[in-house]
Parts: sequence; structure tokens; C-alpha cells
Amino acid sequence: MKGIVNFTPGPSQIYFTVEDHVRAAFRDGVPSLSHRTKEFENISKTATEGVRDLLGVPSGFHVFFTSSATEIWERSIQNLVATTSLHFVNGAFSKKYYEVASQLGKTPIKIEVPVGKGFDKDVAHHDGVELIALTHNETSTGVSLPMNFINQFRDQYPNALIAVDAVSSLPYPQFDFSKIDSLFFSVQKGFGLPAGLGVWIVNDQCIAKSEELLSKGISIGSYHNLPSLLQHSKKNQTPETPNVLGIYLLGKVTADFLRRGIHIIRKETEYKAAILYQALATHGIISPFVTEVSHRSNTVIVAQCRDQVKTITQRLEGVGLQAGDGYGENKATQLRFANFPAHSKEQYEKLVDELGKIK
Amino acid sequence: MKGIVNFTPGPSQIYFTVEDHVRAAFRDGVPSLSHRTKEFENISKTATEGVRDLLGVPSGFHVFFTSSATEIWERSIQNLVATTSLHFVNGAFSKKYYEVASQLGKTPIKIEVPVGKGFDKDVAHHDGVELIALTHNETSTGVSLPMNFINQFRDQYPNALIAVDAVSSLPYPQFDFSKIDSLFFSVQKGFGLPAGLGVWIVNDQCIAKSEELLSKGISIGSYHNLPSLLQHSKKNQTPETPNVLGIYLLGKVTADFLRRGIHIIRKETEYKAAILYQALATHGIISPFVTEVSHRSNTVIVAQCRDQVKTITQRLEGVGLQAGDGYGENKATQLRFANFPAHSKEQYEKLVDELGKIK
Repeated sequence: MKGIVNFTPGPSQIYFTVEDHVRAAFRDGVPSLSHRTKEFENISKTATEGVRDLLGVPSGFHVFFTSSATEIWERSIQNLVATTSLHFVNGAFSKKYYEVASQLGKTPIKIEVPVGKGFDKDVAHHDGVELIALTHNETSTGVSLPMNFINQFRDQYPNALIAVDAVSSLPYPQFDFSKIDSLFFSVQKGFGLPAGLGVWIVNDQCIAKSEELLSKGISIGSYHNLPSLLQHSKKNQTPETPNVLGIYLLGKVTADFLRRGIHIIRKETEYKAAILYQALATHGIISPFVTEVSHRSNTVIVAQCRDQVKTITQRLEGVGLQAGDGYGENKATQLRFANFPAHSKEQYEKLVDELGKIK
Repeated sequence: MKGIVNFTPGPSQIYFTVEDHVRAAFRDGVPSLSHRTKEFENISKTATEGVRDLLGVPSGFHVFFTSSATEIWERSIQNLVATTSLHFVNGAFSKKYYEVASQLGKTPIKIEVPVGKGFDKDVAHHDGVELIALTHNETSTGVSLPMNFINQFRDQYPNALIAVDAVSSLPYPQFDFSKIDSLFFSVQKGFGLPAGLGVWIVNDQCIAKSEELLSKGISIGSYHNLPSLLQHSKKNQTPETPNVLGIYLLGKVTADFLRRGIHIIRKETEYKAAILYQALATHGIISPFVTEVSHRSNTVIVAQCRDQVKTITQRLEGVGLQAGDGYGENKATQLRFANFPAHSKEQYEKLVDELGKIK
């Protein structure tokens, strides 16, 4: 409902400019635009350049559109792994990525720690790993991987590709693209857009790997395999009829973010996270679920609420703030708070004030 | 652009109610709605029941959401074929469906006729066929399969599943669901919606086949395999975060179509097709591309325009009518006219009038 601020970590609060962009799209005929026209190519180019500029994507990397990040779990395994991927599992979503590899007939390895925990920096070495699959921000638990954890794998596994699921953290984190080969997200979280679009960034090494698999007779899928995505993206097109309106809106919102300044978005994200974690750490009833400070996510903040989930949810609803449910079996004891560009400092200050009143 | 009627066969003219539905969606918070809420389940249920009612889908069939019909080409091969599918190829899209099967490592068989032609009713028998893949309406050429052609396969291939791609014909045709096992379409054509959603209808035999493949160790994909789609659809959910707004709009537009009456939509489609084919058949310059009357599509009408494509396109643009380009290499000599529920009788009468003035 309008007037309610949605803190659910995706689909989440829609960025405040989106409704006007949708109105403009209808005015300009975007919803009925053929995906084989120059007009669509311009829309697609604007969106990919917006993503590149916002995230600092260097040359040698390509930006492709899929329908969801869930799809990218599948496509990345299909196109980048003949046999062995290595997964760091610490929650429901990193686990699903691992399971996709099994479902596609690969033999993935997992390094697993309990829910709510991060990983030790010292990682046991495994042979024959083709892909390191990292979930930067585990949306189910609010655990985030430190950048130096991600960046260690290039040296440790010089022959592996490194893929980072940054679904519920981008555009906040600044990744070092020299340390990773693939990065992906979906637009209904940090980009504040309606769901139905995934963005997959890959470098030339990923393309080469998919071609190598194909040459060995391993199926890499059809329309959304990397060579097909690359071939079409060179014309700023897509293999299938895509979510044209979603791509249009991504171009508009990345432009809005760039005007606001990614530096300011990052600073505001850190400010909002700091005041909420501070409020949780000093609260009598509620506490941060992730105890290790260096593993705490700045974009999905999980609160341990003991038996007060219902009371807190209702109190917040009473002032127009919709907390996100805890994930899965933690629904009864936790609440999650997305901290995306669509959530203003004022809304976070109000949230912190309201939580402070609960004693 | 508003004020221009778009006859491109998909993405095509948006149905006239859609913009108001989008406005209502934003008012009601649909774009930021979590896909794990009761509200989403109601939206999803409304859309699937709308599709069932409109197309007369019987019990024993399930309605699933994907991101495109292109995706369904892949998923249907992946989930319904161990080795051999049989494809009837008479244009670019039926050919792509065939090629997807090769890309997924199957050994498809094709029965191919020249572009613009239909198939003889007598079909040579092939052994070991698991899936008959039929493209009801070849969007590239305006050739449609007669219903008695589709309905013959149940007896001829009692052990095969029969899948029908009805991307650019539904909701117009009434299929006999006792003669087919799977039917699919995407929403940006006959349903007059923004692109980014496919609808896949399958029966229990399809589910059983996918489970059989899985039990044999054949990969049927991950999140969008049939058992996963079925499991989630039982709760009116989807495995991934879907195009929530697209599903909402599908529910709204199917309700609009049902209020208008599918019988009336069919009658109007036939009226519009009849007057355009009549105009083409009696025209001095332009003629119907599909010469065999029983193979002509009522929903995508292709006009042979010789060297007059540019002149005709400009004449029509001058009165607010946007003809669809010919497909591929036929762009220089053909125009295509979508005849969907979004195209009114008055617009078709205007189109016929304008074509009549070209001499």
C-alpha cells in the first residue's frame, strides 16, 4: 500500500521515481515496443551503460539480462562448470546455489558453516575446482562476506572462475573486478524496481569457458547460453523477447542513482546501517542476529526478537513501517530490515525511534 | 507512441485497459509485494484461474509461469524428452524450437516444408518419438496449423506427448485438450500485455514424464523443472521471484476478456481477418503471402507487398497505423499485421480502407 514503507528484503520498497518512469514509458509506447527495433536497442544500451557506470564495470566485462538471479544460478553453473564448483554455504540462498549444481548433474563441493555465521579466512584447498560460487550477502541471515574474503580466491585458485551473487547488496558494495569473473543481481532489491529482471555481468574468461564446454559436447543451454547472450548484446538486443519495461526502468533508475551519486548512496547506506545496528545492540529486547561485527551485512539487517516478533511488527505497522519477516523457520523469532537506496535516512531514523520505544 | 496503433505481431498493441491496471497496481503496492505473501498468492490464483476460464483448460492440467515462451521451448524439451522429439518446421520459430532440442543434447527429428507453406495431413511415421512439437501459428510467415492436423497425433502417436506453441494465436483458438498435453504462449502478443511473462500449461502426463527422466538421472533443470513448478503452484507461488506485476496484469486482462466474452473476441478476430484477407486478395499490388486458404492464420496476417513495402508503411504511418515488418529476409517484400483482441474492428476497417487507397 502507498504510505507504508516496505523493509522486506526483496521485493522491497520501490524507488520513489519509478511510478513516474512507468507513466513516461506508457506515454512513449515502451510496453508495446518490439525488441528488434532501434528504440529498444537504445533502451537496452542505456540500461547496460547505467549498470556499468554505477558499479564501475571495466572493459572486458559484459552485461546481460536474464529473468531473475535464480535463473543466473542455473545459467552460471551450466555455462561455467563441466564438473566441479565450490560453494560457500551459510544460509538458504547460498545452499540453493549449491543445490542447482547438483540438479544440473555436476558434482559440487560445499564448505558450510551454521546459519548466521561467516567463514574463516583460511579455506581448505580442493582440487579441480572450476568455479568458486560466493554469496556476497546471504539474504536469509544478514551475513555478508568481507571483501578481503572474496578477493583471496584469485591467488588461491588461479585456474578457477569466481562468481559472486550480490543479489541483496548491490549497488552498495564496490567490488574489485580484477578479483572476480562474474557478478549478478536482480532488480527488485537494491535497485527498487518491480521484480522480473536479473542482471548478469561476466568477463571474457567466462565466455571462453562456455565455448570450451560447448566444444567438448557439454550442453550449455539454448537461448540464454553465454555465446548467445554475447552475440545478441553486441547489437544491444536479447535472444528472447525480454522484460522490455523492466530494462527501460533499470536504465532510468541507474541514471537517478548516478545523479544522486553512488558515493552518497554508499555513505547513506552505512549511516542507516550504523544507527540500526547501534539501536539493536543497545536494546533491551531485540539484538543483532549476526554477532560477529565484520560479518554483518549493511544492506539486510536481521534482528533477533525472541518472542516479541508479533508485537514489534504491529507496533511498526502502526506508524507505517512494514518489517520483513524472518526467513523460513526463523520467522517466529526474527525480523529482517532491508537497507536499500529506496529507504531514506528519515525512514531509518523513524524506524530506530520506534524500536527504541519498545521496552 | 500513444495515438499510433501497433500491428507488429509482438510485442504488439497494449490492451486498452492495461495502463489503468498498472496505475491501480502501484496504488495497491503490487510492485513491492513479496512473492511469499498471501496477497501474491491471491494475485497468482486470479491469473491462473483467468487463463483456465478463458481457454477452457480442464482439470488434470496445470498452469505455470515462466519468463517467456522461448524459455518454454527449452523447459519443455528438458522436461519431456530423453532423446527424440519430432518437430514440424515451416518458418523461423518452429525451426528455433527444433534447434533448442539439439542444443540440449537431444536428437530431434524435423519434418520441414518451405516457408509460407503448411503440412500435408499424411505424416510419415517415426519411431521412438517422445514429444511432438507443433507451432500452431508460425509468427514469421502467418501460417497456422488446422485443428484437425493437430488433433490427429493422439491416435498416431499414443505414447508421445503433444506440445503446442500457440504464442501468437491465443486466446483466439479453442484447443481440444484431450488431443494435446502441453500448450504455451507469452503475454505480449494476443493478451496485449508488456513483455516478460510466459504461460505454460501441462497435464499430469507431462509431470510424470519429467519425474521419469529425473529418476533415470537425466537433468531436467533446476528451479523451473516441472516438479518444482508444480510444488510451488500448489501454493499459488513460483520457485523464483517472478514478474509479479506481469502476473497481476494477466489476471486483470483475462478478467477483461472474460467480461467481453471469448465468443465475441473469436467472432471479431474472424471478422477482422476476413476483411483484411479480402482486401489483400482483391488488391492490385498487395496479396496474401499464404496462398492456401486453410493454412492462413487469423491472428498474424502476412502481406506480400513486392517493392512497395516502404511506400505502404509510410502511407499507413501517416494515418496512425504501424504495420509490422516482414520477418528476416522477407523484411524487404512483406508486411505483417497482428490481429489481436487489442486491435479493434474500427482500427481494422481503417487499415483496410487505407490499403484500398494504395494503387
